Amino acid sequence: MPPSKARPGNYFEDFRLGARIAHPTPRTITDGDCALYIALTGARGPVHCAVPVARAMGYRDRTVDDLLLFHVAFGKTVPDISLNAVANLGYADLRFLAPCYPGDTIRAESEVIGLRENANRRSGVVYVRSNAYNQHDEPVLTWARWVMVHKRNPESPPPETVIPSLPELVPPAALAVPADSNPAALAAAVTGSADRWDDYEPGERIDHPSGMTLEESDHMLATRLYQNTARVHFDELAMKRSSFGRRLVYGGHVISVCRALSYDGLENAYAIAAINGGSHTNPTFAGDTLYAITEVRDRWALPGRTDVGALRLRLLGVKNLVPAELTSPAAPDGKPHPNVVLDLDYTVFMPRKSRP
Amino acid sequence: MPPSKARPGNYFEDFRLGARIAHPTPRTITDGDCALYIALTGARGPVHCAVPVARAMGYRDRTVDDLLLFHVAFGKTVPDISLNAVANLGYADLRFLAPCYPGDTIRAESEVIGLRENANRRSGVVYVRSNAYNQHDEPVLTWARWVMVHKRNPESPPPETVIPSLPELVPPAALAVPADSNPAALAAAVTGSADRWDDYEPGERIDHPSGMTLEESDHMLATRLYQNTARVHFDELAMKRSSFGRRLVYGGHVISVCRALSYDGLENAYAIAAINGGSHTNPTFAGDTLYAITEVRDRWALPGRTDVGALRLRLLGVKNLVPAELTSPAAPDGKPHPNVVLDLDYTVFMPRKSRP
Amino acid sequence: MPPSKARPGNYFEDFRLGARIAHPTPRTITDGDCALYIALTGARGPVHCAVPVARAMGYRDRTVDDLLLFHVAFGKTVPDISLNAVANLGYADLRFLAPCYPGDTIRAESEVIGLRENANRRSGVVYVRSNAYNQHDEPVLTWARWVMVHKRNPESPPPETVIPSLPELVPPAALAVPADSNPAALAAAVTGSADRWDDYEPGERIDHPSGMTLEESDHMLATRLYQNTARVHFDELAMKRSSFGRRLVYGGHVISVCRALSYDGLENAYAIAAINGGSHTNPTFAGDTLYAITEVRDRWALPGRTDVGALRLRLLGVKNLVPAELTSPAAPDGKPHPNVVLDLDYTVFMPRKSRP
Repeated sequence: MPPSKARPGNYFEDFRLGARIAHPTPRTITDGDCALYIALTGARGPVHCAVPVARAMGYRDRTVDDLLLFHVAFGKTVPDISLNAVANLGYADLRFLAPCYPGDTIRAESEVIGLRENANRRSGVVYVRSNAYNQHDEPVLTWARWVMVHKRNPESPPPETVIPSLPELVPPAALAVPADSNPAALAAAVTGSADRWDDYEPGERIDHPSGMTLEESDHMLATRLYQNTARVHFDELAMKRSSFGRRLVYGGHVISVCRALSYDGLENAYAIAAINGGSHTNPTFAGDTLYAITEVRDRWALPGRTDVGALRLRLLGVKNLVPAELTSPAAPDGKPHPNVVLDLDYTVFMPRKSRP
Repeated sequence: MPPSKARPGNYFEDFRLGARIAHPTPRTITDGDCALYIALTGARGPVHCAVPVARAMGYRDRTVDDLLLFHVAFGKTVPDISLNAVANLGYADLRFLAPCYPGDTIRAESEVIGLRENANRRSGVVYVRSNAYNQHDEPVLTWARWVMVHKRNPESPPPETVIPSLPELVPPAALAVPADSNPAALAAAVTGSADRWDDYEPGERIDHPSGMTLEESDHMLATRLYQNTARVHFDELAMKRSSFGRRLVYGGHVISVCRALSYDGLENAYAIAAINGGSHTNPTFAGDTLYAITEVRDRWALPGRTDVGALRLRLLGVKNLVPAELTSPAAPDGKPHPNVVLDLDYTVFMPRKSRP
Repeated sequence: MPPSKARPGNYFEDFRLGARIAHPTPRTITDGDCALYIALTGARGPVHCAVPVARAMGYRDRTVDDLLLFHVAFGKTVPDISLNAVANLGYADLRFLAPCYPGDTIRAESEVIGLRENANRRSGVVYVRSNAYNQHDEPVLTWARWVMVHKRNPESPPPETVIPSLPELVPPAALAVPADSNPAALAAAVTGSADRWDDYEPGERIDHPSGMTLEESDHMLATRLYQNTARVHFDELAMKRSSFGRRLVYGGHVISVCRALSYDGLENAYAIAAINGGSHTNPTFAGDTLYAITEVRDRWALPGRTDVGALRLRLLGVKNLVPAELTSPAAPDGKPHPNVVLDLDYTVFMPRKSRP
């Protein structure tokens, strides 16, 4: 009898520094996925929802929502990287490199760029650099992440510790604005706001007005759409025996819902350029109602562009508490506030005011 | 520090008679939206679901379900018109003007056509005429509605009262049958019924046999798909403090589910021509089971057409009570029956029997 | 007043041996349906999800998931065949005859091939052969099924008993491998497994590792997407009065979820060739967590093909019990184990190892 064909995913010992993994099950993203993404998140960005707007902006078609692209690409890496993860510890240096259009087929690859066994010898941290490509083998997205992964056997010898150097943030010069894009074409009548890059001040806080209550069906539909197979999101029977006691909402769904909620107040932030870092500070469950707060961290001009600038933003996802009642995302003891579920540092593109 | 960029929507004082509002976030309706519409409502109309049937009928492609078009167009108006609505009071003179096809991009505009402050000075009624256009700027849909909107400040001076004249119904001559359509091509084998316009008698009542139980996830998916941002449908935390105590199902979802339930018995009603008026007589919540009853109100020949006629119908949506048990949509005290949630007066096109 | 236009479906007396029924409401399957199918089931087969993979395999486009095609075709037959069914008793001789692509329009026809009144005279068994066709009138799918249907009137005279001869299984020679397909192109890097037809041994058991908890919204979305109108899945009010006490999950949704769960361990089973038979051994409800077990029943070479073979598999769907805890799908009394909800006998195509 052959060994079981149902493989259990990789354990810490299975990762070798420098190893390259081609993730299976490439995925064509279609109009169907884009419609579902709107239905699941409430996203409204006209560049992703309206073909004529995208064309006026210089794209050949409406673009796939940046986060939909990310979730699909990320989902590809799960079976190889994080099926046995204890925790997703962090992201860094995530950059969107080229527009993705409906009809594009996305595949992903990862390279192991760091390893560190934990002191308890029962798990270790794996650092990977992942890249997503379209059907022309053009890179569309790159990111680093690190996850804590179980060891198969605590007695296995530890690998040499290598901790990669990862940037605190993606600097303005590394952001990929398409050369022939025309952000100035993004009319206020189309997005609903005349506020441009020039109008946002570092330190400014925006309490986005809407809330969204999550359901089990919603987050599972989203996570299955991304073909993300992490079991914590789907298997209530197993999760009842976990410390959470129930299914966890995929952190990426939380990011997407909060990004969609933040449309009101960031209407002209037409594309995500980069994610500098982020953490899921508390778990999110079905039944939770999410709200979003944005803090403007920085406002960067972009080399060679007077029509578009970048804003570095902090996106806080808050559950079961309206933004006005959150004075600080940290509790008095310095830990994350128990109602804060997301603390994301990311960078968007926004048109600048036209100068006469 | 600039003022908050998260705008609170318009209050009664913000509306000026004659003001024109171009609603933001145009939307391309795709095959993905059409598939979701079927999954969310159970709609089965072959003209919307089967390309060869639509082509035999003279359309260049299957058409977008009339109500999907309406919900998308209506959703566009919500952030500007009804985000601070106390209640949606009514619709009138809704007319479908041209077919909408997958790939079309829809935008909406509204004009304020009436204003009346309430005696309590804390709110007022705003009347708007809204129009939806496709990417060629052709009008595809027009409707009037009136909503009660909060005042920002009870002390604000009232506007001059103007109450627009709105028709009781859309007369047959105002219904837009596409000139080159061929309704006679709608074969009984394709729809499941040989009943034609000629077979429906004014006064006839049809108790549609199926029921549909609603879930929170379903109605929120639908309402997000339409990019309708009214908070009462999404924010359980806020709604717990409301008089309803929980999220409300978007009235448009109720209309769509009841229209889909009414397919059995109205199989050849291939297009909605107009909505004459309607009211959501009671709230609908997740967990409610909906049934539908149709009463035939009138049967109209159409000028210059012997192949197609119009039926004016009353569609009653009933919750948690099978149609056979509803003898009258009004309770003994004259108020709407507590199980009736929808009372819609609308007009459909149906092929006529061919005459030798 | 005309008779009610809402027809109650066919009763046992309405079926005549040899009668042919053209089922209404043909359906164009689009990218939207395919995206929803992924979101609803978690399906990952690259031939259905990635255009370049399907093309490398010799298809002109990605193919519609076999089970999505089946559910749509099956749904067409429900209003005529099984709306008044007491129970779906079985399937036999289901064969996929030609690939189905997004954009194809599917219609279905059935022929009554057997009738047998039950001893209690209150119901009878109807045997039908159903066929589905695309827009070119090419057959894409054929199957036999038998259902127990209520009689309208117990006093009606019974028809002559005719029980059709149906095969125990679809023999290898009857399986339709497309002549110009190139299964060897299905790279391990694309599916995630190098296991080929040659590696599977009759008698081998695969406990698929993942579980999926079902929600009311999910199964209703799926069943509505297929335009299957069987009321037991949708009407909680009616089902509360049934012996089940609540809505039943459509058995086809259970098949699809279990097939998707079985991807891990059957990665190269790129197409379903046939369903030999199957039964829903216990009801499935929202809240149940499903797991899947595969037993390899047979391994068949295919006439004239050295690049692809067929595997006959048994797919067991298990609820609320992890596969490792199920030693036998039968309980000690010989009845199906109470946690086994699906026992499906089906045949897949899988690439063979290339020989030098």
